[in-house]
Amino acid sequence: MSTDPAPPNPGISRRGLLGLAGAGVVGAGIGVGATVAVGHASSTDSGAAPQYPFFGDHQAGILTPAQDRLHFAAFDVLDISRDELRELLSDWTYAANRMTAGLGAGEYGPASGPYDSPPDDTGEALDLPPAGLTITFGFGPSLFDDRFGLASRRPDALIDLPHFPADLLTDALVGGDLCIQACSDDPQIAVHAIRNLSRIAFGRASLRWSQLGFGRTSSTTKAQVTPRNLFGFKDGTANIRAEETDAVAESVWVADGDGPDWMTGGSYLVSRKIRMTIETWDRTALREQETVVGRTKGEGAPLSGGEEFTEPDFTVTGRGDVPLIAESSHVRLAHPSQNDGAALLRRGYNFVDGNDDLGRLNAGLFFICFQRDPRTQFVPIQMNLAKNDAMNEYLRHVGSGIFAVPPGAKEGRPIGAALFG
Amino acid sequence: MSTDPAPPNPGISRRGLLGLAGAGVVGAGIGVGATVAVGHASSTDSGAAPQYPFFGDHQAGILTPAQDRLHFAAFDVLDISRDELRELLSDWTYAANRMTAGLGAGEYGPASGPYDSPPDDTGEALDLPPAGLTITFGFGPSLFDDRFGLASRRPDALIDLPHFPADLLTDALVGGDLCIQACSDDPQIAVHAIRNLSRIAFGRASLRWSQLGFGRTSSTTKAQVTPRNLFGFKDGTANIRAEETDAVAESVWVADGDGPDWMTGGSYLVSRKIRMTIETWDRTALREQETVVGRTKGEGAPLSGGEEFTEPDFTVTGRGDVPLIAESSHVRLAHPSQNDGAALLRRGYNFVDGNDDLGRLNAGLFFICFQRDPRTQFVPIQMNLAKNDAMNEYLRHVGSGIFAVPPGAKEGRPIGAALFG
Repeated sequence: MSTDPAPPNPGISRRGLLGLAGAGVVGAGIGVGATVAVGHASSTDSGAAPQYPFFGDHQAGILTPAQDRLHFAAFDVLDISRDELRELLSDWTYAANRMTAGLGAGEYGPASGPYDSPPDDTGEALDLPPAGLTITFGFGPSLFDDRFGLASRRPDALIDLPHFPADLLTDALVGGDLCIQACSDDPQIAVHAIRNLSRIAFGRASLRWSQLGFGRTSSTTKAQVTPRNLFGFKDGTANIRAEETDAVAESVWVADGDGPDWMTGGSYLVSRKIRMTIETWDRTALREQETVVGRTKGEGAPLSGGEEFTEPDFTVTGRGDVPLIAESSHVRLAHPSQNDGAALLRRGYNFVDGNDDLGRLNAGLFFICFQRDPRTQFVPIQMNLAKNDAMNEYLRHVGSGIFAVPPGAKEGRPIGAALFG
Repeated sequence: MSTDPAPPNPGISRRGLLGLAGAGVVGAGIGVGATVAVGHASSTDSGAAPQYPFFGDHQAGILTPAQDRLHFAAFDVLDISRDELRELLSDWTYAANRMTAGLGAGEYGPASGPYDSPPDDTGEALDLPPAGLTITFGFGPSLFDDRFGLASRRPDALIDLPHFPADLLTDALVGGDLCIQACSDDPQIAVHAIRNLSRIAFGRASLRWSQLGFGRTSSTTKAQVTPRNLFGFKDGTANIRAEETDAVAESVWVADGDGPDWMTGGSYLVSRKIRMTIETWDRTALREQETVVGRTKGEGAPLSGGEEFTEPDFTVTGRGDVPLIAESSHVRLAHPSQNDGAALLRRGYNFVDGNDDLGRLNAGLFFICFQRDPRTQFVPIQMNLAKNDAMNEYLRHVGSGIFAVPPGAKEGRPIGAALFG
């Protein structure tokens, strides 16, 4: 992260400066008080330090090659007005644009004056490159109640998720008026982003729940190696990839006419905190594990044969006419062919949150998916899985969220500007 | 992680195989059932994949260049015999030696047969290099009660830590009969190690508490850049470095004659889970932050002048004869010159464990230090800090542990073998 060379301008209030969203750190427009210190971030031993622009047609952090680490946060909006909510989104946009460019969250500091004020940035990302940081904002169903005059603008697709069989949700891990997904290849950068955005929201929005993910479980581009989840299996082999432009258009982005207009170019994010009972899983035979998943553990090949990227053939049977890929296997039940063609762009992360009183690791998958319409994608797929998936024996869904992710912000405008008309 | 080419040997019991500690994956000795598949681990995009031998005069993970990520675990030993405790340590040694060499935790699997048994390894590290994995074992004071006949072998230096002023310890985050520190540049590798060692301990030892750390806060070699803690300051500038062989001998390793003999070449680990009230810190002026720390935030230079690695000069005063480095500053109170020359090898990690009910990030420093004798090192230094450090206003010590870290295991012998005589 570079420090700002520009001296503070005492003639402009700090709040006023923060309000200048979209200061154009990346790109052409240069806002008052912003600097153009892009690309000064020193590189580290880790080599590549990708940098993704914040502004664009779509928000980054969806098709962006899945970064290695995650910090996700859901917020409750406090007792503020509609205008103050807009201002919060404007301030967040300003800071997000800066941080994704490797700058501090605000103009002051974190390590330069004025010395009699708190710095605008907390400092732990000083000297670090952005490490592929993306910051993705979303709006939960509860934002569209009667507090902010947004009820009439709630998308039909932004449903309240139904109860799924065997859901064991904890209230404290469910919902949220707003969400922020921060992904980076450096966890310090992802944490820094959520921390500074939480700080900017002080008095206006409060953290409801948050989650660190230490390892990605999906690839979103064809160049990425398929990672493994905590069951030890490759995950996301059949994921939608950025290069599959038809599938992306069909299944990820809200299209013109899907409605409402302010969501065109956006997407819907569903998150599920899924605890895995790994101790039980680890005591099952390898054959049982592979039967539950429907793939081999080593290669990740479908049990119907071939290699990792071979399409599973659900019709192939073995001895006694038993399907090689079991009826209750995860790969079968989650496959588009078993769900009227519905597919999801997955972007989940492995997590470990210490251990419970019984000495079991509190570990699992923080599942994130993006889609054009959860009513025809996540909901029917998850209903199918929740009823029939043999893997359920080893899973507990404890947290849940759904958020409308607006299209990318245009330079000089805050995220979600079109929502406010 | 490489898969084992060797077929299982049905003539030898699995437990018997696990009992063959020190199977010599790295080095000369080749134990029954072990393989020599060293260095087969495929490299990844991240480039360098260092590999450290498990066996040696000292345990790895102390002077080893501090890796980026941590998974630390403390265990309660269950109702087992002295011989069974020895066997657990033998099994842990066998698995730790394999995992640090990039192999699975045991002979079977994780993805090869026999298909009717659970694999010996959980699989999430398949295809990954060891990423500098070190696994460091320690023994808590409670191991030396009357359960295992070890009371007479308890080192005098393995004290019960005193209560420090303002300690806010939570029982569930304190103590432990055994500890394992797993460090790696890849968090999936560190988690994999703790998970598999916990699994091997099933029925013999149970996780008491555990902690993930996402970012190192210390350097242990001169080649490493000083990282930043969640106060945004460089941390560990004055840390003991591996190259400082006199300081290492003086302050880190238990010397011949320090007693007891089984600890010669070992060290004492003290861990402290220190929550930082970052929201409060973030609202203080930059000047106040620098005064509390005693260094500049940007460069990390002592306030007495110079650059990061300039020795602080505590005698320099400014206007009104006020010391430039405040009497209550952290750098002054922690400095060897203020503690009868006592110094620590620090090896801590930043952590974030979600957030609390008030919407504050549950974040801070998981402090780890190594030393020759905590009675003359950690305890007096921490007593001094606990009483006088201006930083205490922003800290809460919530967890604590002290462990005797035996010397490195010799090939073919389990860790801590000399303790059992």
